[in-house]
Amino acid sequence: MKSTRYAALADEIEQAIAAGVLRPGDRLPSVRQTCASHTVSPSTVFQAYYLLEARGLVRARERSGWFVTEAAPAAPPEPAASSAPDGNAVELDVSAMVFDILEASMSRAVAPFGSAFPGPELFPLARLGQEMAAAAQSLDPRATVDDLTPGLARLRRQIARRYLADGIAVDPDEIVITNGALEALNLCLAAVTRPGDAVLVESPCFYGALQALERLGLRAIEVPTHPRDGIDLDALASAVSRHAPRAAWLMPSFQNPLGALMPEARKRELVALLARHGIPLIEDDVYGELWFGERRPPPAKAFDAEGLVLHCSSFSKSLAPGYRIGWAIPGRFRKTVARQKLSLSIATSAPAQIALAAYLERGGHDRHLRRLRETLRIRQASVLRAIAAHFPEGTRATRPEGGYFTWVELPAGGDALALHRRALAAGISIAPGPIFSAGRGFGHCLRINCGHAWDERAHDAIATLGRLAGRAG
Amino acid sequence: MKSTRYAALADEIEQAIAAGVLRPGDRLPSVRQTCASHTVSPSTVFQAYYLLEARGLVRARERSGWFVTEAAPAAPPEPAASSAPDGNAVELDVSAMVFDILEASMSRAVAPFGSAFPGPELFPLARLGQEMAAAAQSLDPRATVDDLTPGLARLRRQIARRYLADGIAVDPDEIVITNGALEALNLCLAAVTRPGDAVLVESPCFYGALQALERLGLRAIEVPTHPRDGIDLDALASAVSRHAPRAAWLMPSFQNPLGALMPEARKRELVALLARHGIPLIEDDVYGELWFGERRPPPAKAFDAEGLVLHCSSFSKSLAPGYRIGWAIPGRFRKTVARQKLSLSIATSAPAQIALAAYLERGGHDRHLRRLRETLRIRQASVLRAIAAHFPEGTRATRPEGGYFTWVELPAGGDALALHRRALAAGISIAPGPIFSAGRGFGHCLRINCGHAWDERAHDAIATLGRLAGRAG
Repeated sequence: MKSTRYAALADEIEQAIAAGVLRPGDRLPSVRQTCASHTVSPSTVFQAYYLLEARGLVRARERSGWFVTEAAPAAPPEPAASSAPDGNAVELDVSAMVFDILEASMSRAVAPFGSAFPGPELFPLARLGQEMAAAAQSLDPRATVDDLTPGLARLRRQIARRYLADGIAVDPDEIVITNGALEALNLCLAAVTRPGDAVLVESPCFYGALQALERLGLRAIEVPTHPRDGIDLDALASAVSRHAPRAAWLMPSFQNPLGALMPEARKRELVALLARHGIPLIEDDVYGELWFGERRPPPAKAFDAEGLVLHCSSFSKSLAPGYRIGWAIPGRFRKTVARQKLSLSIATSAPAQIALAAYLERGGHDRHLRRLRETLRIRQASVLRAIAAHFPEGTRATRPEGGYFTWVELPAGGDALALHRRALAAGISIAPGPIFSAGRGFGHCLRINCGHAWDERAHDAIATLGRLAGRAG
Repeated sequence: MKSTRYAALADEIEQAIAAGVLRPGDRLPSVRQTCASHTVSPSTVFQAYYLLEARGLVRARERSGWFVTEAAPAAPPEPAASSAPDGNAVELDVSAMVFDILEASMSRAVAPFGSAFPGPELFPLARLGQEMAAAAQSLDPRATVDDLTPGLARLRRQIARRYLADGIAVDPDEIVITNGALEALNLCLAAVTRPGDAVLVESPCFYGALQALERLGLRAIEVPTHPRDGIDLDALASAVSRHAPRAAWLMPSFQNPLGALMPEARKRELVALLARHGIPLIEDDVYGELWFGERRPPPAKAFDAEGLVLHCSSFSKSLAPGYRIGWAIPGRFRKTVARQKLSLSIATSAPAQIALAAYLERGGHDRHLRRLRETLRIRQASVLRAIAAHFPEGTRATRPEGGYFTWVELPAGGDALALHRRALAAGISIAPGPIFSAGRGFGHCLRINCGHAWDERAHDAIATLGRLAGRAG
């Protein structure tokens, strides 16, 4: 630890800058003050300040100390327009490329900007472990064979309570517990489609949706999606009338990969538009609790009068990655989804369900979520600032109001697949744009995960990426 | 507990009879001896002996004590012939009936002869709980996001070691961990078929296979299967040449629902026959460790030289129901199956995987399995004897050499669906024959689960079933 104490101090100050505690022009605490406040030696403080200077965040003024730089751009500009896929239904063949890229990115040795998960240190795994220990040792043996599907009643009640606290009425009996949200989404998709059907997706969209469509023999209709406001409703309406789609699979809040958040009014409009045509909406809300604003943005499910919204979420992004506990609230398709679940995998791991139920019953989850959101917000600011500092002129990046992704557009000529290969050789993963598109568009785009620890190594990795992106252009 | 002490004593003696410790003609220990050995009152012993007398198991002789009856048939006769489906490929529509029946049978209030699981008290859940507690509290946070699919390396190593101990060489890297065997089977089926393909199944066969085929839009070719020796290889060869099936989904050991065990030579022949035609064999081996004989019957996978056997199993029947940990060993289809798993549910619950790995590393699993097998063997004998005593003349039942099912054929005119409805009204579940057949055959058959605690309530439930079966005829 001794050798990185100065780096930790630098990171702390960088986060204070990112959080706006220290603003451009502010003076850093003096070396003497910092020695006292952090019980470190002067040389540690000097090393930290030199490091911040090297990062372009502070500048020393003769005899006056160190100041936060005025010039450092807080973030790159945002992407301008929505994407424009051609609007035709596309037969899918994306899986192999996606898998190759995902598998290449899984090593622990790799800087995880391509990962789909946030930093595992963000989660109360020790507390969950205590609940798990208690649950496992006092397990009623019969609980392992009944409460199969739709899942543990205690857990369904806790999930319903959380929706209620956000003003969304959900009956515990409407909930089906699943092996993570991805199983829930797959079950819902299978419940409302038959092979050959067309399904509306966003463009760019979550590669898992494309894989699911491919596996079920469905066609994707990609609808342009704005980096800030989400799916283009005019384009959606036109796709509905052209293709008679059987379903839509969308992420109205903190869309993966863009981070887009549909404003409430547009969500209402979306639900009403699909309901007019009797089209079920499969809503992927896995990032819905990771908002940075004043309150939880309501999911589309909140506006569902017809039971046509099949809402899916999980604890994997907010509480317990690796436990693989998710759920579906499938509206009028509940029975079908529950039966599909029973015949696909019977049930969801009982000890994990019991542990999460016990954790939620004990309280404290909201406190954890507040800390988590604040950390993710600060990390996003750090990543965006580093992109602004190190990526080629003309690079753009989204500034989502929640979640932990940013979508980066390289300047004209940028090649994200080439960047992916070069970055991986340098020990850095990214998620290149083409994996988010059935038509393999977005060749100059990439998704960056901002949810991992922001430290010198991460900073250096972004700097390396920026340098490689310049060459790749 | 006091009021049932005599019943517990009666059960103990009944099990001794079933296990052959007490044989027909043997004298029971005297009332005085039993009072001393069990520290109970004489009236408790008398009540127990009267109960055994009422069950037809013992008879009092004037001044001589109680003797095990000579007449009590140990089991009903076995079914004679194999079933004879017409051999046509069948489009499937079984799910709704199966689900209705399964859901009706799930209540704890119901005597669980229709259940698919053995008694939950058979499993070392407390020891697993301790492992789970240790695992959950010392969890490396990163373990929740890497080791995703194909699953925890520690656990895959332990599984491979167990196969090796039985003389079956499996590399840990060939194994894909899944949410129970059912997910493994579903993934394997999806990996080797496309909608519209024909798939060979046994007749009668596990309803989960029929549901999986239905969900994937596949056609079932039902092949007659002998209650003792398993699938008819001549009929199989003829079905192969008539239908060019794309795959076979079979249970060569302790087939569900018959309990049939294919002799080793026939398993070899099966694997060779399918390999000659390049047909992948999806092998469901979930009961493979529950043998009553001298040693583990080798799975078909043991004879697989071509990588065409996709072997699937789990811990759900032998160690940890409710944990939902299974696996596939998909041979040459490993990569496809692993990727399907990743895109279907990403991964399998990490704490459950770690707990099972730790439990297996610590040793003692074989001791547990020996006890489990012995208990299941004794329970099967008790159930068969009760069926012989209480079911209508002409009833037949299989005597499997492993697992915990028996397949009961009612005399001509018997109606298992009617029996199912009447039994459920009396608080007893059964699994009626038609749910094991795409063509809804086996109307006079039912599957009985012998794996639950054998006590007075269970005995009475079998007696009730026998009475209802007489009426249903």
